Amino acid sequence: MGAVREALDALPLVDHHCHGVVGGELSREYFEELITEGGSWPGISSFDSPVGVAVRRHCGPLLDLPRHAPPAEYLARRAELGAREVNRRFLAASGTGVFCVDTGYAPDRLTTPAELADAAGGTAYEVVRLENVAEAVAAAGVEPDAYGDAFRAAVQRAVARPGVVGVKSVAAYRTGFDLDPARPSPAEVTAAAHAWSARGGRLDDPVLVRHLLWTAVDLGLPLQLHTGFGDNDIRMHRADPTHLTDWLHLTGGAIPVLLLHCWPYQRQAAYLAAVFEQVYLDVGLTLHHVGPARARAILEEALEITPFRKLLYSSDAYGVAEFYHLGALAFRRGLGDLLQDRVAADELGLPDALRIAEWAGAHNALRVYGLPGPS
Amino acid sequence: MGAVREALDALPLVDHHCHGVVGGELSREYFEELITEGGSWPGISSFDSPVGVAVRRHCGPLLDLPRHAPPAEYLARRAELGAREVNRRFLAASGTGVFCVDTGYAPDRLTTPAELADAAGGTAYEVVRLENVAEAVAAAGVEPDAYGDAFRAAVQRAVARPGVVGVKSVAAYRTGFDLDPARPSPAEVTAAAHAWSARGGRLDDPVLVRHLLWTAVDLGLPLQLHTGFGDNDIRMHRADPTHLTDWLHLTGGAIPVLLLHCWPYQRQAAYLAAVFEQVYLDVGLTLHHVGPARARAILEEALEITPFRKLLYSSDAYGVAEFYHLGALAFRRGLGDLLQDRVAADELGLPDALRIAEWAGAHNALRVYGLPGPS
Amino acid sequence: MGAVREALDALPLVDHHCHGVVGGELSREYFEELITEGGSWPGISSFDSPVGVAVRRHCGPLLDLPRHAPPAEYLARRAELGAREVNRRFLAASGTGVFCVDTGYAPDRLTTPAELADAAGGTAYEVVRLENVAEAVAAAGVEPDAYGDAFRAAVQRAVARPGVVGVKSVAAYRTGFDLDPARPSPAEVTAAAHAWSARGGRLDDPVLVRHLLWTAVDLGLPLQLHTGFGDNDIRMHRADPTHLTDWLHLTGGAIPVLLLHCWPYQRQAAYLAAVFEQVYLDVGLTLHHVGPARARAILEEALEITPFRKLLYSSDAYGVAEFYHLGALAFRRGLGDLLQDRVAADELGLPDALRIAEWAGAHNALRVYGLPGPS
Repeated sequence: MGAVREALDALPLVDHHCHGVVGGELSREYFEELITEGGSWPGISSFDSPVGVAVRRHCGPLLDLPRHAPPAEYLARRAELGAREVNRRFLAASGTGVFCVDTGYAPDRLTTPAELADAAGGTAYEVVRLENVAEAVAAAGVEPDAYGDAFRAAVQRAVARPGVVGVKSVAAYRTGFDLDPARPSPAEVTAAAHAWSARGGRLDDPVLVRHLLWTAVDLGLPLQLHTGFGDNDIRMHRADPTHLTDWLHLTGGAIPVLLLHCWPYQRQAAYLAAVFEQVYLDVGLTLHHVGPARARAILEEALEITPFRKLLYSSDAYGVAEFYHLGALAFRRGLGDLLQDRVAADELGLPDALRIAEWAGAHNALRVYGLPGPS
Repeated sequence: MGAVREALDALPLVDHHCHGVVGGELSREYFEELITEGGSWPGISSFDSPVGVAVRRHCGPLLDLPRHAPPAEYLARRAELGAREVNRRFLAASGTGVFCVDTGYAPDRLTTPAELADAAGGTAYEVVRLENVAEAVAAAGVEPDAYGDAFRAAVQRAVARPGVVGVKSVAAYRTGFDLDPARPSPAEVTAAAHAWSARGGRLDDPVLVRHLLWTAVDLGLPLQLHTGFGDNDIRMHRADPTHLTDWLHLTGGAIPVLLLHCWPYQRQAAYLAAVFEQVYLDVGLTLHHVGPARARAILEEALEITPFRKLLYSSDAYGVAEFYHLGALAFRRGLGDLLQDRVAADELGLPDALRIAEWAGAHNALRVYGLPGPS
Repeated sequence: MGAVREALDALPLVDHHCHGVVGGELSREYFEELITEGGSWPGISSFDSPVGVAVRRHCGPLLDLPRHAPPAEYLARRAELGAREVNRRFLAASGTGVFCVDTGYAPDRLTTPAELADAAGGTAYEVVRLENVAEAVAAAGVEPDAYGDAFRAAVQRAVARPGVVGVKSVAAYRTGFDLDPARPSPAEVTAAAHAWSARGGRLDDPVLVRHLLWTAVDLGLPLQLHTGFGDNDIRMHRADPTHLTDWLHLTGGAIPVLLLHCWPYQRQAAYLAAVFEQVYLDVGLTLHHVGPARARAILEEALEITPFRKLLYSSDAYGVAEFYHLGALAFRRGLGDLLQDRVAADELGLPDALRIAEWAGAHNALRVYGLPGPS
């Protein structure tokens, strides 16, 4: 198999961005909904997709099924084993040592970070989603004039809780990145808060999104940014991270900025990571959706010019425990094969390859978030 | 060769978007013009390009020539056999069972759908190009105040003809997709029709293009949209289909939307197909221009996250019969090798691979257009 | 190794866009700064990147080191040999017969074109960077009312010097390509010159950048345009060359336009080269940054639809002589393997492959710039 693949297979990963797993049993409809970024479409099964094929191929055997077992058998066996056992098997198989859990997206009832870590035998930290904090501040009935201070104070309280290691923004979903990069003035924030208060709904005002991003800059913690791939709430062309260039210049490296997912803009993200000291990237979410059959191709593009201290691992697993396993597998094989083949072609020395694997799989994240190594 | 390649080679394709073939004999200059999206350039032969190389390699043998025969020999033999025989050979070799013919682009005198089907031994349907209908309405001297109703009525008449199975828009060429997604009001349409009437020329007013797209929504028929690659009348960055996101939300799945060509935005198109129930894609036109040497690479990207019910085949052949053969060959080989290799790597089960091949090559199109299977 | 690779290895390249080499000895910090588009980042070595790995692998042996020797050994040996010998070895190894040197970017003291050609045993020509000319005109204290004429006269003087074969613009850096494509009126130029005179600083006024591009059109010389990849002064999404489409239509083929670097927009650049007679492209700078391990993948994309008379070679080497060698190596291997494999797969005839290799490596550039062949 080769030394690099072996080393990556043995490495406890640091999954710097993931979510929880749905705790209870899952109907076929619910399972199919959870494995797609699309939705429930009559007559089109989510299993008939790259991710569906990958689940049957790579997750089935962990449930004692033959490879490629049909969806009905897969789900029957899943139900038979029960959610707790299924989750335990996939989380253990993922070989994840550290989880940084974004707790801010939970339309479903999810496992807590502690439950997650427990099932996997790892350690969990928390990432605070800033839009949730802002919306909670608004929901609590803050006066628009006080919104700016109240949001800042709420964020500071949220990140002061034990185990919080970073913050996250879904600005890509709310406005896209083609925003005025400048810090908004207090008067602008107040005016926008008034308008938001009158309008209601989720935080999607461009001024308040900018204020949120600049509040993150002041915090000093690593900031995760959703970029690229997601559900149909994204306007993809506005989620190209290179629209952040002026903002990255203005913020001047105050905080690490971690570009999540990135596909189909992995090259654009790599460019930013290559020219801005504070920028890092991963291709989480993408890897399990394209599956092991294409994970390497995505990683090849993501690594074309990315400095080796700048690539991180994340699963972005949400809902089904399968995605922890699939994400980890696709990452280990994709990166492992890429590095191994470069060693075989004598384009890369073996010690270098081993170092790059360890950096991307664990050490880069430990360094950025200031975490101890996995136990 | 493998079971998937064999199955794809034997499958009568449904070519859901193509044009006609020039009926008469072709001079070298004319032939060279027809095989490029560029034009006639002194000192640069169209044969010195990926598509030119592919024609000599894959079409020459069907004219009894050795592979890679020089252009002059190729064209001499082509003339010797005569257009009728040449067209018959390439159309038969394409193994196409069903053609959906866009009859709206014909700067050259082309075969009719019936002649095409006849030469290939298949069945032909028609796709109505909406810009042509609009321009015919204007040319007939409609009063601007009556344009909206007249266009709607003309489209309804056009699609009521026997054999019409869908409509097409070249909005990508006329305005690009970065349009206001909302349905324009009757007053806006009338005002724009007045301005167009005064100005003349082709339909390129943004309000009237929006009106055209919303008229298509009301029809209920599948709508083909040119996206990405084309001649230099395109502003490529405005033909990125993700600019359609808001419009896709507003139209709410009323009609199937088929993204044509897509390159270099095949990943963006795949994203839309993965997150919008009503979106489908193909990589027609692209496949014969890149040739069999790169068709697989394009298909690999197009399929990274595309649900397997969402990929269709089209040749987008225009003018020369070679492109029916080349498009079909590039598709069969590209998809066949992709699937076969995944089966060989045990990433995909053989029955799944065979099903995906059949879906993409024929059944997805039959389903979307509501057609009977090829006879 | 194969006939195509052999032919490419023996071909004296025409490097149609490069810079000079820093003449003196280089500290580790300086060397690390010169091999990245990023900068000096504490704790992150530039050697820990694709280009760093490629330097150790492919340049070390030319300094008598084993492959993959560590950075400290590499730099020690480099210092031991001395800059003159190091430069001579890499320049000779590059096998470059002709250099077209952009002399307009020189934050460091660089070798002159003549010194460069001397070290390589080749011939050097000069490319005039238009922004420098404009800024020199302004620095000389021209009256804003006279700026338009003064700039035009200065450019004409600059290109009249012996050895000048083309001009270059970094409009991508200054404004991006999403500009009004029209030629600005004299009054607009004067107004903009007044504003620039009052404001000072580098030339980044959109009207003056347009004026600069139109001045180039009037000159009749080939115009090189930076597109895509560069340092963090770029707004990448505005450096997509398809934004030039309207300008390319308006200028109507008056001059050859050479798109440099292009990554990650090599497909967009290829599209322009395929549909505009006057457009050419290279993937210089990109090739040594991604290294030989990925050069072929980039070239595969760049060549998907590019007519074979439209691809040129450039190193875009700057600062360190290593990049002349690496760029040439990555080009020869990447293109050589691509062509050789297509010959082996019988997708391309050998004589065609040899012709394409020669065109891309030398003849296309000789033709565009009207140069005699390398001696």
